[in-house]
Amino acid sequence: MELSELETPCIMIDVEQARRNVVAMQKAVNEAGCCLRPHIKTHKMPFFARMQVEAGAVGITCAKVSEAEIMADGGLDDIFIAYPLVGAFRIRRAVALAKRVKRLILAVDSIEGAAALNEAALAENTCFETRLEIDTGAKRTGVLMRNAALLAENIARLPGLRLAGLYTFKSLNYQGEATCDNELAAHEEAELLAETATVIRNKGITIEDISGGSSPTGLAVARTGVVNEVRPGTYIFKDLMLCDEGVAQLEEIAARFVATVVSCPSEDYAIIDGGTKCFPTDVPLNTAPFFYNAYAYVEAMEHLRLNRMNEEHGIITSSTRKTGLRVGQTLSLLPIHVCTAINMQNSVYLWEQGTMHREPVGARGMLV
Amino acid sequence: MELSELETPCIMIDVEQARRNVVAMQKAVNEAGCCLRPHIKTHKMPFFARMQVEAGAVGITCAKVSEAEIMADGGLDDIFIAYPLVGAFRIRRAVALAKRVKRLILAVDSIEGAAALNEAALAENTCFETRLEIDTGAKRTGVLMRNAALLAENIARLPGLRLAGLYTFKSLNYQGEATCDNELAAHEEAELLAETATVIRNKGITIEDISGGSSPTGLAVARTGVVNEVRPGTYIFKDLMLCDEGVAQLEEIAARFVATVVSCPSEDYAIIDGGTKCFPTDVPLNTAPFFYNAYAYVEAMEHLRLNRMNEEHGIITSSTRKTGLRVGQTLSLLPIHVCTAINMQNSVYLWEQGTMHREPVGARGMLV
Repeated sequence: MELSELETPCIMIDVEQARRNVVAMQKAVNEAGCCLRPHIKTHKMPFFARMQVEAGAVGITCAKVSEAEIMADGGLDDIFIAYPLVGAFRIRRAVALAKRVKRLILAVDSIEGAAALNEAALAENTCFETRLEIDTGAKRTGVLMRNAALLAENIARLPGLRLAGLYTFKSLNYQGEATCDNELAAHEEAELLAETATVIRNKGITIEDISGGSSPTGLAVARTGVVNEVRPGTYIFKDLMLCDEGVAQLEEIAARFVATVVSCPSEDYAIIDGGTKCFPTDVPLNTAPFFYNAYAYVEAMEHLRLNRMNEEHGIITSSTRKTGLRVGQTLSLLPIHVCTAINMQNSVYLWEQGTMHREPVGARGMLV
Repeated sequence: MELSELETPCIMIDVEQARRNVVAMQKAVNEAGCCLRPHIKTHKMPFFARMQVEAGAVGITCAKVSEAEIMADGGLDDIFIAYPLVGAFRIRRAVALAKRVKRLILAVDSIEGAAALNEAALAENTCFETRLEIDTGAKRTGVLMRNAALLAENIARLPGLRLAGLYTFKSLNYQGEATCDNELAAHEEAELLAETATVIRNKGITIEDISGGSSPTGLAVARTGVVNEVRPGTYIFKDLMLCDEGVAQLEEIAARFVATVVSCPSEDYAIIDGGTKCFPTDVPLNTAPFFYNAYAYVEAMEHLRLNRMNEEHGIITSSTRKTGLRVGQTLSLLPIHVCTAINMQNSVYLWEQGTMHREPVGARGMLV
């Protein structure tokens, strides 16, 4: 199949490159003596979650119960929902999900959330395995470290919950703040988690699992030896953001956009058939030192930039003031942020061993 | 139904307010002696497209053939796809669609695009009604005005196309450039279109329809008397962007987010269950003079700001340094840009006459 035969704008995934990325991370994490529980937020497809488990992952991580349901439908049976499970509508769905998987781990970061979950467990005459989210500096969800021990004690008293782990996410914040050093961030993250675990264990609470690590920090966190699980997501496909963070190379990127040039009104700009409904905008321009000051990198045409968009229009300009593009031409582009890119596609093209087929993005748009 | 019973994060639409917005625009455009052909990009739902046609719209506007297919499935039979129809995969679908609606108008802005469309028409022994897109300053799709007459002549020679109209979109560019004055922009848009139409008509080409106008400029364009059709979209639900442009009031906004507070780790910030997979980011912060320097406006809580996000995390801060929020609380938020907001929801809650039900967003994610 030729690129020009694809229905654009679309995302095409090189399955063999994705598998190489999966196997490499699994091997490196295992060699560090750590477990890998990849976050499915990047691919959102049972197909790739199964690939990760077959490669040796202990299970998967989801952000939302609706994502976890899709993964369970796809045969995944060891799932951690790494997001505080708040809201009666969400707890109801988690209760139902727990009955059809081998292991479901739920997250708490407040006594209010834990109490509601405890009540639901008791009503079902069951006990939920839970992990407490610790804020190691991201300033989003997660109990502050100074409040963690008291909260852990209070959660441990609830008969419907078994507090068996701690987890964290160390944000490398791309929304206006400077990029951290990954290695430094990883060590800080692991050490803060380990310290918090020690304080909680000293209260007589058994903490079996200490889980950290994103794609930028994951491997470095695993190698500290003080956590027993990491949860990277983006490493499976990689993107420009990971390249910028120094933990990926352009040639390792497994997911690319294909778009069609629909208009060339002037030699200095051209329009492709995807805009903000297709290319991620969750990394505002000029707020981070990206290699390519653009919303995507046009492969094999380094003079081109996708640097303005409307909903359906991607405006390509050229550093030479001549795009050299023609109407009907097909372009291949690398995403800045692959997770939100895939979230906007109902299906993607999978390319493997010379054949191409469409696969639905099952957990796309799962917000609940 | 109470807000706290909704599965969040979600969008709730006040159907009666949407109907008031639809009726008001229809009345004003008709009073200006103009036709209304609303763009469905905002709601993406046949339910609301039918409401617009029942109120007097001559037909609807779509951006993509895949959107038009969904609208045809929903009973809409007079459709303008206001986007250059380029790509064999897209033309194939348009050919099939033309056979099942009363009127399908296709767009061209290049001779290459027109030639491919002409070929497809001749192969089917048919003739497509087409409109030529004119760039009146947006610098995206649309032939430059100085090239319009020659292109129109060349298109008019193609036996498979009937060039019967001109259209334009006057961008008020929110991505880094200053906001234009709406009234001024509307007059400029209408006059440039009318001038171009005169030049083309002087070549002996019959131009029946001159179509312009977005939600900010639409009514002012209609009132110039030199166009016979306008294509606003956002006016049906309105959003903060339209309020900022002075063509909407907060109380006219018909679409709002409902989100649940999932975490309050510190009194100065709280986390809601929606982030960049839910709230639009296609209007980067600090690039335009929005009333509310945030990704959404928290209703009835003016001290709160949604000003940082990750994919699943919306971080709420307070101008008083105390959010006053508690875990489990439900918030109502107004979107900056409603079109891309609805594009990220598989379904929305419709609220009408005291009842609430879920309606799928049929044309969500239709990129082809």
